[in-house]
Amino acid sequence: MAAAQVGLDSPLENDTSLTDTQNLSFVLQGIHKVKFEDRPVPELKNPHDVIINVKYTGICGSDVHYWEHGSIGSFLVKDPMVLGHESAGIISQVGSSVKTLKVGDRVAMEPGISCRRCEPCKAGKYNLCEDMRFAATPPYDGTLAKYYTLPEDFCYKLPEHISLQEGALMEPLSVAVHIVRQANVSPGQSVVVFGAGPVGLLCCAVATAFGASKVIAVDIQQQRLDFAKDYATTSTFLPGKVAATENAERLREENGLGAGADVAIDASGAEPSVHTGIHVLRNGGTYVQGGMGRSEIQFPIMAACSKELTIKGSFRYGSGDYKLAVGLVSSGKVDVKKLITGTVKFEQAEQAFIEVKAGKGIKTLIAGIDV
Amino acid sequence: MAAAQVGLDSPLENDTSLTDTQNLSFVLQGIHKVKFEDRPVPELKNPHDVIINVKYTGICGSDVHYWEHGSIGSFLVKDPMVLGHESAGIISQVGSSVKTLKVGDRVAMEPGISCRRCEPCKAGKYNLCEDMRFAATPPYDGTLAKYYTLPEDFCYKLPEHISLQEGALMEPLSVAVHIVRQANVSPGQSVVVFGAGPVGLLCCAVATAFGASKVIAVDIQQQRLDFAKDYATTSTFLPGKVAATENAERLREENGLGAGADVAIDASGAEPSVHTGIHVLRNGGTYVQGGMGRSEIQFPIMAACSKELTIKGSFRYGSGDYKLAVGLVSSGKVDVKKLITGTVKFEQAEQAFIEVKAGKGIKTLIAGIDV
Amino acid sequence: MAAAQVGLDSPLENDTSLTDTQNLSFVLQGIHKVKFEDRPVPELKNPHDVIINVKYTGICGSDVHYWEHGSIGSFLVKDPMVLGHESAGIISQVGSSVKTLKVGDRVAMEPGISCRRCEPCKAGKYNLCEDMRFAATPPYDGTLAKYYTLPEDFCYKLPEHISLQEGALMEPLSVAVHIVRQANVSPGQSVVVFGAGPVGLLCCAVATAFGASKVIAVDIQQQRLDFAKDYATTSTFLPGKVAATENAERLREENGLGAGADVAIDASGAEPSVHTGIHVLRNGGTYVQGGMGRSEIQFPIMAACSKELTIKGSFRYGSGDYKLAVGLVSSGKVDVKKLITGTVKFEQAEQAFIEVKAGKGIKTLIAGIDV
Amino acid sequence: MAAAQVGLDSPLENDTSLTDTQNLSFVLQGIHKVKFEDRPVPELKNPHDVIINVKYTGICGSDVHYWEHGSIGSFLVKDPMVLGHESAGIISQVGSSVKTLKVGDRVAMEPGISCRRCEPCKAGKYNLCEDMRFAATPPYDGTLAKYYTLPEDFCYKLPEHISLQEGALMEPLSVAVHIVRQANVSPGQSVVVFGAGPVGLLCCAVATAFGASKVIAVDIQQQRLDFAKDYATTSTFLPGKVAATENAERLREENGLGAGADVAIDASGAEPSVHTGIHVLRNGGTYVQGGMGRSEIQFPIMAACSKELTIKGSFRYGSGDYKLAVGLVSSGKVDVKKLITGTVKFEQAEQAFIEVKAGKGIKTLIAGIDV
Repeated sequence: MAAAQVGLDSPLENDTSLTDTQNLSFVLQGIHKVKFEDRPVPELKNPHDVIINVKYTGICGSDVHYWEHGSIGSFLVKDPMVLGHESAGIISQVGSSVKTLKVGDRVAMEPGISCRRCEPCKAGKYNLCEDMRFAATPPYDGTLAKYYTLPEDFCYKLPEHISLQEGALMEPLSVAVHIVRQANVSPGQSVVVFGAGPVGLLCCAVATAFGASKVIAVDIQQQRLDFAKDYATTSTFLPGKVAATENAERLREENGLGAGADVAIDASGAEPSVHTGIHVLRNGGTYVQGGMGRSEIQFPIMAACSKELTIKGSFRYGSGDYKLAVGLVSSGKVDVKKLITGTVKFEQAEQAFIEVKAGKGIKTLIAGIDV
Repeated sequence: MAAAQVGLDSPLENDTSLTDTQNLSFVLQGIHKVKFEDRPVPELKNPHDVIINVKYTGICGSDVHYWEHGSIGSFLVKDPMVLGHESAGIISQVGSSVKTLKVGDRVAMEPGISCRRCEPCKAGKYNLCEDMRFAATPPYDGTLAKYYTLPEDFCYKLPEHISLQEGALMEPLSVAVHIVRQANVSPGQSVVVFGAGPVGLLCCAVATAFGASKVIAVDIQQQRLDFAKDYATTSTFLPGKVAATENAERLREENGLGAGADVAIDASGAEPSVHTGIHVLRNGGTYVQGGMGRSEIQFPIMAACSKELTIKGSFRYGSGDYKLAVGLVSSGKVDVKKLITGTVKFEQAEQAFIEVKAGKGIKTLIAGIDV
Repeated sequence: MAAAQVGLDSPLENDTSLTDTQNLSFVLQGIHKVKFEDRPVPELKNPHDVIINVKYTGICGSDVHYWEHGSIGSFLVKDPMVLGHESAGIISQVGSSVKTLKVGDRVAMEPGISCRRCEPCKAGKYNLCEDMRFAATPPYDGTLAKYYTLPEDFCYKLPEHISLQEGALMEPLSVAVHIVRQANVSPGQSVVVFGAGPVGLLCCAVATAFGASKVIAVDIQQQRLDFAKDYATTSTFLPGKVAATENAERLREENGLGAGADVAIDASGAEPSVHTGIHVLRNGGTYVQGGMGRSEIQFPIMAACSKELTIKGSFRYGSGDYKLAVGLVSSGKVDVKKLITGTVKFEQAEQAFIEVKAGKGIKTLIAGIDV
Repeated sequence: MAAAQVGLDSPLENDTSLTDTQNLSFVLQGIHKVKFEDRPVPELKNPHDVIINVKYTGICGSDVHYWEHGSIGSFLVKDPMVLGHESAGIISQVGSSVKTLKVGDRVAMEPGISCRRCEPCKAGKYNLCEDMRFAATPPYDGTLAKYYTLPEDFCYKLPEHISLQEGALMEPLSVAVHIVRQANVSPGQSVVVFGAGPVGLLCCAVATAFGASKVIAVDIQQQRLDFAKDYATTSTFLPGKVAATENAERLREENGLGAGADVAIDASGAEPSVHTGIHVLRNGGTYVQGGMGRSEIQFPIMAACSKELTIKGSFRYGSGDYKLAVGLVSSGKVDVKKLITGTVKFEQAEQAFIEVKAGKGIKTLIAGIDV
């Protein structure tokens, strides 16, 4: 079946012939080159799979990076690829072996399907799967389509009081859950989070839910700190244009951190954040690198060594992260609604990319084609 | 009581008046400026303390660094300081509360006395003690003296079949034990060790004793690799003058490491080693920084992040490390004898510093004044 | 100096000569045989010590057990022993090395002083110290006196908004903190707590503070469950007079525990609780024995084996527990005030024992002699 | 295709018509009622699967238990079931997606196939899979057949220097690896193993390979101890007919265990072993229940509580266990050959059950039909 192709310059919202699409998809063809394609509706092949009618999709930095650069690191968009991976939707079809979901269920969608057979998968580290198929990471299509297929166990049923918009936020929340778990944040600890974008803010919220007694957001934009101040932090910090050691010392003093913070989380990817993070920690503290940035930076390795720090990377999310994300929102411990600062129609999907690129708002959602 | 002072140019070995010294000590006064002082014999003040007649002392890079530069990082030798911290000796006096040691016992001496009261001490991380008194770290005197005082619990009785020379090696072996424990080396793992000096070689030996199935020593000096080949490794690797990623790839290929090594240990402090160590690891692998070097270096942080590595510093030694070090030598699992490549008389102590500086041999010992 | 001895039958409150006591102490002499002794005021011997003017002391089951039986297990009260170990007070004197406390500071008192030198102490497990001196555990005197001596690092300064009465509750709260830490309770988990006495209730509160999403209190007394219902639980459970497996099944069903609870904590010491706890757990779940009871019981060991449970004892409290206890109360995450159901004058100390024995109220405090 | 059925009273070895069997299988029909069935050769359905020509199969207590009782716990043999689960063989067919194995490869066969989708599977605990299909556990057929199907990732290629007979021992060795890993045995520790049957002996060998400095085998049969003495132990212990506390004390004294052993492993399932194991441990020690026995026993729970022990069940084997088992034999650290005390022909399979039941030898193998 040939897919109908629709250029962006023929605005969809006025094109009545498209109200009856089969599986309209938002496809990246090259740098800054996107179009809508009406692809065939997926068929259920695996009895454990379900098909989801996608309702809301958030846009994050990596989506924008592919749209702007056509690649991230060694991941190169060679063939047209559907964008999007932060989604929630409604089950429209279930395979014969599916037991816990039924048509009509509202679910958050975990967008990376692990192979289940490699050593990391069997060791409980499926985010490190050697054969991961991750939505909107080449060559795998993303979720900005009418329909998307997932195995049952990568769908998380939303309780009635959680909206589908909130459901789309489970993806960045799971990223934050994974980071905070990597950091082993425990009750009573002090946590400094660098970067007050969506993931940084959610790290603050999760650290608070994990019982941290001090949660300090650091950002170079005052407006972000203003938001953070009222969102899951005990204080905020605007770094001065001074040495990292000096910012670290002021952080310790202003926040009564004594010998240093227990945990530092970088959700910015910026070199000065990394340095300040290392220097603000106490002996034996834990640092987690969550933000993506330059592949190599200057790094205060002797401080890390002589303070005997534990430094960990955090990559996507794995065992139990999505489940906990839904639980934290369901119990009211984490508020994701406040982060949703805009929603655009599916037909205006590219607008969301432009807004994220411009740093407008915190999290922009794209509605499904039939919302 | 005034201490007799003896200049180095009046060679001690010919000075019969000194055969009857009280507590002859080898003192650093400034850069490249050492002298012998006959200090008073220490008195037992704490009932839990013992006095040890020091018999053998090894010299390591940090001793030489103080001798050459008068400081390490922020530790500055302001007042004259006795050097040395890798020692073994014979108990000459015991306090009234001492239960497990008696006069005449041969012991390895753990040279850092923790405060026992701060949070790290009470949390089992006494190597991170906030008030550590460490031998030959300013302002605390070291062990290159006739007598040295330690609490009973920082002395480790040597079994009969372990010599006092081997006892002096328990210090660098404890450093290696701590590094390998920080790395959580477990049976069947592959371990790459960068730097084939005394600590790197001992890391290889300890990793082998911990059940590692592949232990690969990396060094840029072929003669060190020649030694390492016959000492507790499964293979050796001479890095090429190519990119770290390329050396890492060749390491993987030559050693059948598949997706990468489980553990990388740096005992060199050199930037290229750090890079190769990060790149040679598998997803989820562990890197430990044991070697000291430049305080800041270029660092492949995104590789660490996306491979979700655990990176740890390792600082000195702590709970159980000395005990295990003695056990590993006692059971024959680690051979420290092979590393002792020379012994000088106490009166020629400075000669040991000159040799270590020149990279002569692997480990040079200084005999006690009355050996 | 001979201590004045005062029989209980000469009521102290009317005895004006005693208003000017030096260090009036409540002493157990034998089974149900107590008296007041005016012992000498303690002197500061160790420069790290402080002397505390004790203001409030709680009474727990172990105190009552000594009063009733003269022993607990192998701990036998041979010589007269001051009772009490759950106390808070005001610093009245500080040693010369004390840095963080000053006269007048209000503190919670950790009543077990570890030796700081044995292997468990240096490994961070000081609650397992081989030479512990624990208040009101023979032969060591307890805290039911006007003055008590402690090392600085076993005193925890109370923030202004925490009362001294609450300070006395830090001891049982630290017991609960240690139990919940042993259980590794993490956010989103389900926790079943057996026994709704003070420690069980505090375990519920701490598990909640640690992020447990379901906290179920189990007790055979409905009135205790009525209290628990409004105190830090998500539900309560009154076991039926049926097999433990049946109660476990009903617990799972009523609470939506699916394959079983993540964590079970016993704070009752009763055999049926232990059995139900083991059976209510999911595969791979964690069970912690906090309550004291018969030394041997029937135990479903094959269920523990084939479900691959982790079962841990919990003994007193250790590194960081008191500090976190104060933090949890300070931040409002745990409410200890609600548990204080009565206060008696020092001169009526025995009355508190009678009330606890009778199961009256939840926690009875004894005021200090000069309150 | 109907399977030819052959009664045991028509001895197969003389029946030439059976030399040309398709997939001769050894089937349990009821208590002490077995027969040979020539079932159809399995077909490859999943592209990740391989078919193995089974060459050697060991018999263990659970096989014998089904043969004798027709059930283990709640697992009841309702329909005829092929016995056997400790096997090695040669790949005879590979699915289209198989990458690491080819026809002719010699492999150890891990006999429990996890669902890969449930929470324990995705959390790295696939031995606790909620939907496990385990060979010779009803209703799943075992490996005592000519051919058996497994997913590629449950087959472990044997190095050339490991025989197929040794390959069959990888199953009990993996059980021991899992037990010793559950016990977190680390270098320098003391380990007491109760029960010197195949699994107990292998636990001794694995503990030794993990660096334990003292490994003590305990059994009530002197002949088993005689074997254990020369096999991977540092000493053996024959319990007296005295209280468990008394045996524990003698164990400590005879073996210089000081405050107690670090680890106790039960591979016997006997109540006195459990008690002695708990009592022989030091404060903070670890106990692992590996042996199966009565579902409930008397248990010294207060000793476990006040010594703050960690007690764990161990169930089968999971992530990395088989791989390490092969590695330990390959490197010569564990010798499984010594444990093979007999081999019977496939046609005499029942003889192996009779011998195991009689306690004859240590491990009896059944050769494949075409060996």
